[in-house]
Amino acid sequence: MNRPSGRSIDQLREITITRNFTCHAEGSVLVTFGDTKVICTASVEKNVPHFLRGTGQGWITAEYGMLPRSTGDRMGREAARGKQGGRTVEIQRLIGRSLRAAVDLKVLGENQITIDCDVIQADGGTRTASITGACVALVDAITAMREQGIITGNPLKHMIAAVSVGIYQGTAVLDLDYAEDSNAETDMNVIMTEQGGFIEVQGTAEGEPYSRIELDQLLGLADAGIQTLIEKQRVALAL
Amino acid sequence: MNRPSGRSIDQLREITITRNFTCHAEGSVLVTFGDTKVICTASVEKNVPHFLRGTGQGWITAEYGMLPRSTGDRMGREAARGKQGGRTVEIQRLIGRSLRAAVDLKVLGENQITIDCDVIQADGGTRTASITGACVALVDAITAMREQGIITGNPLKHMIAAVSVGIYQGTAVLDLDYAEDSNAETDMNVIMTEQGGFIEVQGTAEGEPYSRIELDQLLGLADAGIQTLIEKQRVALAL
Amino acid sequence: MNRPSGRSIDQLREITITRNFTCHAEGSVLVTFGDTKVICTASVEKNVPHFLRGTGQGWITAEYGMLPRSTGDRMGREAARGKQGGRTVEIQRLIGRSLRAAVDLKVLGENQITIDCDVIQADGGTRTASITGACVALVDAITAMREQGIITGNPLKHMIAAVSVGIYQGTAVLDLDYAEDSNAETDMNVIMTEQGGFIEVQGTAEGEPYSRIELDQLLGLADAGIQTLIEKQRVALAL
Amino acid sequence: MNRPSGRSIDQLREITITRNFTCHAEGSVLVTFGDTKVICTASVEKNVPHFLRGTGQGWITAEYGMLPRSTGDRMGREAARGKQGGRTVEIQRLIGRSLRAAVDLKVLGENQITIDCDVIQADGGTRTASITGACVALVDAITAMREQGIITGNPLKHMIAAVSVGIYQGTAVLDLDYAEDSNAETDMNVIMTEQGGFIEVQGTAEGEPYSRIELDQLLGLADAGIQTLIEKQRVALAL
Amino acid sequence: MNRPSGRSIDQLREITITRNFTCHAEGSVLVTFGDTKVICTASVEKNVPHFLRGTGQGWITAEYGMLPRSTGDRMGREAARGKQGGRTVEIQRLIGRSLRAAVDLKVLGENQITIDCDVIQADGGTRTASITGACVALVDAITAMREQGIITGNPLKHMIAAVSVGIYQGTAVLDLDYAEDSNAETDMNVIMTEQGGFIEVQGTAEGEPYSRIELDQLLGLADAGIQTLIEKQRVALAL
Amino acid sequence: MNRPSGRSIDQLREITITRNFTCHAEGSVLVTFGDTKVICTASVEKNVPHFLRGTGQGWITAEYGMLPRSTGDRMGREAARGKQGGRTVEIQRLIGRSLRAAVDLKVLGENQITIDCDVIQADGGTRTASITGACVALVDAITAMREQGIITGNPLKHMIAAVSVGIYQGTAVLDLDYAEDSNAETDMNVIMTEQGGFIEVQGTAEGEPYSRIELDQLLGLADAGIQTLIEKQRVALAL
Repeated sequence: MNRPSGRSIDQLREITITRNFTCHAEGSVLVTFGDTKVICTASVEKNVPHFLRGTGQGWITAEYGMLPRSTGDRMGREAARGKQGGRTVEIQRLIGRSLRAAVDLKVLGENQITIDCDVIQADGGTRTASITGACVALVDAITAMREQGIITGNPLKHMIAAVSVGIYQGTAVLDLDYAEDSNAETDMNVIMTEQGGFIEVQGTAEGEPYSRIELDQLLGLADAGIQTLIEKQRVALAL
Repeated sequence: MNRPSGRSIDQLREITITRNFTCHAEGSVLVTFGDTKVICTASVEKNVPHFLRGTGQGWITAEYGMLPRSTGDRMGREAARGKQGGRTVEIQRLIGRSLRAAVDLKVLGENQITIDCDVIQADGGTRTASITGACVALVDAITAMREQGIITGNPLKHMIAAVSVGIYQGTAVLDLDYAEDSNAETDMNVIMTEQGGFIEVQGTAEGEPYSRIELDQLLGLADAGIQTLIEKQRVALAL
Repeated sequence: MNRPSGRSIDQLREITITRNFTCHAEGSVLVTFGDTKVICTASVEKNVPHFLRGTGQGWITAEYGMLPRSTGDRMGREAARGKQGGRTVEIQRLIGRSLRAAVDLKVLGENQITIDCDVIQADGGTRTASITGACVALVDAITAMREQGIITGNPLKHMIAAVSVGIYQGTAVLDLDYAEDSNAETDMNVIMTEQGGFIEVQGTAEGEPYSRIELDQLLGLADAGIQTLIEKQRVALAL
Repeated sequence: MNRPSGRSIDQLREITITRNFTCHAEGSVLVTFGDTKVICTASVEKNVPHFLRGTGQGWITAEYGMLPRSTGDRMGREAARGKQGGRTVEIQRLIGRSLRAAVDLKVLGENQITIDCDVIQADGGTRTASITGACVALVDAITAMREQGIITGNPLKHMIAAVSVGIYQGTAVLDLDYAEDSNAETDMNVIMTEQGGFIEVQGTAEGEPYSRIELDQLLGLADAGIQTLIEKQRVALAL
Repeated sequence: MNRPSGRSIDQLREITITRNFTCHAEGSVLVTFGDTKVICTASVEKNVPHFLRGTGQGWITAEYGMLPRSTGDRMGREAARGKQGGRTVEIQRLIGRSLRAAVDLKVLGENQITIDCDVIQADGGTRTASITGACVALVDAITAMREQGIITGNPLKHMIAAVSVGIYQGTAVLDLDYAEDSNAETDMNVIMTEQGGFIEVQGTAEGEPYSRIELDQLLGLADAGIQTLIEKQRVALAL
Repeated sequence: MNRPSGRSIDQLREITITRNFTCHAEGSVLVTFGDTKVICTASVEKNVPHFLRGTGQGWITAEYGMLPRSTGDRMGREAARGKQGGRTVEIQRLIGRSLRAAVDLKVLGENQITIDCDVIQADGGTRTASITGACVALVDAITAMREQGIITGNPLKHMIAAVSVGIYQGTAVLDLDYAEDSNAETDMNVIMTEQGGFIEVQGTAEGEPYSRIELDQLLGLADAGIQTLIEKQRVALAL
């Protein structure tokens, strides 16, 4: 089997992580997984949702969007249509849930960090790129909060990163681009910690069901890919 | 570890599947997983979404709702608030995707089956009960289509069923009720075919990340539970 | 004239009232008028709308919905379309207004009871079945409030019930089913108290105007039907 | 009992009907019932709703609105809030239904007449003023259609008019203004034809239930009032 | 060049300003620019938007609407469509901004005046008629506030008025009606104070770009027209 | 007077225009006016709005958005709030109108070009940067259409560019950044062609009215600035 990109089956696309991409947000990262490019910002707000007021606990939430022409055909702008589509809602819930699993919300105090992931160019894997970039923006926002004295402790429990894996033409491959993703038999998104713990696994059979053996192959590829991604996050953060 | 319900760790709640629960739909099932009760209907329409017209292929879609007082506290009615919440959207996308994986859409012809899953009483596991009940309603709808001569072949590829598993107080358990689900460390929904293939695996760490060993335990419990559920579907359908 | 159902002109359909139909609501009733089946729940909230805060007075409000396949053809889900239709709004305003007329809102204190009427199967007369069932759910909710010490007095002024009457093929008939309702010349909904007082009369000429004589016949049928319905409510409540 | 306005119990407010109030609509009427002022327009469109295409039958529909400061306190603009309130929906459905009962939709051909009733000043009875004025606008629109050769026959079956009656301080009175309406024990809207047939009766107990004797008194007042209103419509139309 | 109306190039249409047009609002004006007729009301509320609370400063905001049949073809009602169109939003922002420039918001105290401009008949220039009429309604509302002791000083800094100018068939003309407006090469709206200061200039090339010479001609016409309009406002207000 | 940025009163910020910024759109430009950064894409669609079908004429439309954290404080995402704000609507109408004035819509055939301007970092002047960048994206899209044989002629009539001018601390200045814009007495946006014709002038007094002399100064500054911008567009396009 030859991947359209010529990559080996366990090879990530070229990954770049650019911090301070825009100037206003406490954390602002441009992350690229090959031709997939996402701006991830982390915004600090001294306020929490209603259900947390008075609990001393903070919150992390996320919103996701795609520029209308980030894709091959122009998509209608969700703001103009007046509602976010089901896919958008699903992705932003995943991003928020994943990043909440990376921090101790009690150490965050009654502050909220809002993650915005806006895709400016899409070529598959936008949700995994978003989570991987957002974690770096989150670290920068936490650093800013500590420098400003908003919090004293470090709420970060562990770095997290995300990658897609899938069965393409019968073979398990890592980090699918759009050419692969749109033809994959199985598509799986995996989010893990730097220690190798699972935050989320979502594996969907697009055509035929997948077997336990395939599932194990996919998780193996994902594990290795995520460790590489976390290394790149650390380099970007100079940790 | 004692489960709140006194069940053993690999024990499903009492499952009932009542066909022909209401009179208008081509398939109408009341499914109960213990105190979780869901009405699943399958409605046949001789029409397909725009993107399928002229392809000869059919479609299955799903909608999900909860009666406002299906839960302990009354939830706002989504029709009154003017939009479906993120959780609703996520669940109905999952139901539709899963059932599409059970049928050969080409054999369905240019017809659409709409699955409605409406929770009248909730006690955890509403999405897995929905999928398990909806598959029975789907079979009844397919039978009706064949009897009416709308289609000639049988589009059903295999029965599917769904169950939740999770880590509760450090132990992997099957089919969580609300008391467990709201306190679980990890929550996983598994949808499988009667042959044991995976349609969807969604596992989320609610607190600490979960390990590979825990993931394997959860999949093992799910596999056994699903085979029991499919047996109950077959009994209900007198297959 | 023969009614499609073979009933006599002053004969109600078979009426059943099942209390405690679901487990979470303070009042939960399944009411059936023949093939029309409605789940009516009454939910207590220690809060009132903004315009009543500080007045010491309570409120009763109602919401109404139909499951998409409660009808012969599947109706679009209002939550998915993003708004409640005009018919829904009209019916839920009628239900709320009628039940408010059954209670002394001052004795209710600053508490709100929300009535949800969800039609799971429709065969005409869903609004009158809803009101008749909701009044029983309301009584149960009031009893629960008194048992929990939320209120001390009894805010219920009188039982109310509702029934439809209409001119079908030139003859006044009681409790129209769908076959009659969709062809009736005049359709009237009547809500009355156990003492025979009128809460609401809504009579609409669907085709030709109706005469004063016909109006009198309709009110006579409704009066008798409502007394029977209230007797059935009392039996269900063991009053 | 003294009415706040000093009127006798069976006395209408001063009624004026001004045709051709604005210049674009096929029918345009300013109707006033005392201080209640409504602009009623009838717009002809050579098109019908989807469900009537190909049937040869026409349609009449209505929309209702209030200018934000038509009332004592400014009401939020429905266009700005993004939805029509329940009261608006209920009223416009009543107006449309009533006027459809005045015409033979088959004679209308596949044309639609849209009635717009916009309240510029409110003092009670806006829906009955709307229907009374709209019937005149409708007649003008029908005349225009006949003059333009859009239709040949006369679809008008009979003039209709509407009036409110109610129990105010224990006495049945005709044509309630806001001072009465906001304190009435019972409020009833009656729509009748020039021949005395009923199109719609809607009577609501706002406080105590009303008796059959009171209902009869209210219908008697309404009948007389409506005959006067229809006479005023005829004068305005020079019929 | 002959104007369709026969007016000279610097001639306004017939202007009327009728105060106290409706009875509830603190200021209520019917303004007509020829066949364009707008009801402008000013409503006083002892409250300000969130961002002004505690600042001691007031606010003026505006909303604009057109009755559905104010135009040659019936327009869909914005309340029914569920959103205000772009043109509406643009116009009401312009009206609000212009009137805020006429008053000292600090002298207004923490009070809000809401301007509603509702077009009952349209023939071009609805936004300029709206602003011109609204300024008179605003003065009446301010007078009412002072009489009621809500404020002590006079927040009005200067009268303002608005007029449209444009290039029609190559010639600069004043106060375009619909016949001109829909064919103009350039359309400009000018809002000025009684002292001749500019509040807003909005000039748009509909076809070919316009030159500096044309711009100067348009501003000259507008200046003269606005002084006439302000004189008419003064007469109406008996200033 | 010293400008916060130290610029002279007639000095633009540093302007950059980067073509082919993203890979999918027919035209894709990153434009920066100092710290204001906007992605402008032009998307070609072989289709026109309903009102143009069969006319042989094309259309240009525009949509505008800001990433939530493009600004100092995070703004709510319009897609999540379910509607575009008034400012957004106003700006995207201005962008669309301006670009339509740059092309001969007849030469475009029945094709639509959609301009998306998405602000990734804001520091004042986002609408003028958007128009200036969008014109370059438009030229690239037109070139692509000609290369693909979609059109044969060149619909571009002239380049256009836009700049803001304003009165800041009593002095007319060119190209206001946020520090100036948020404190300016008068704010004016000017859109002109390469030949010096006006497409649009929008000048608003934020505080005191502005005089004719000030207006003339502002137009003078804008004229010079726009010629510089058009030169930069030409360099970017290698024209």
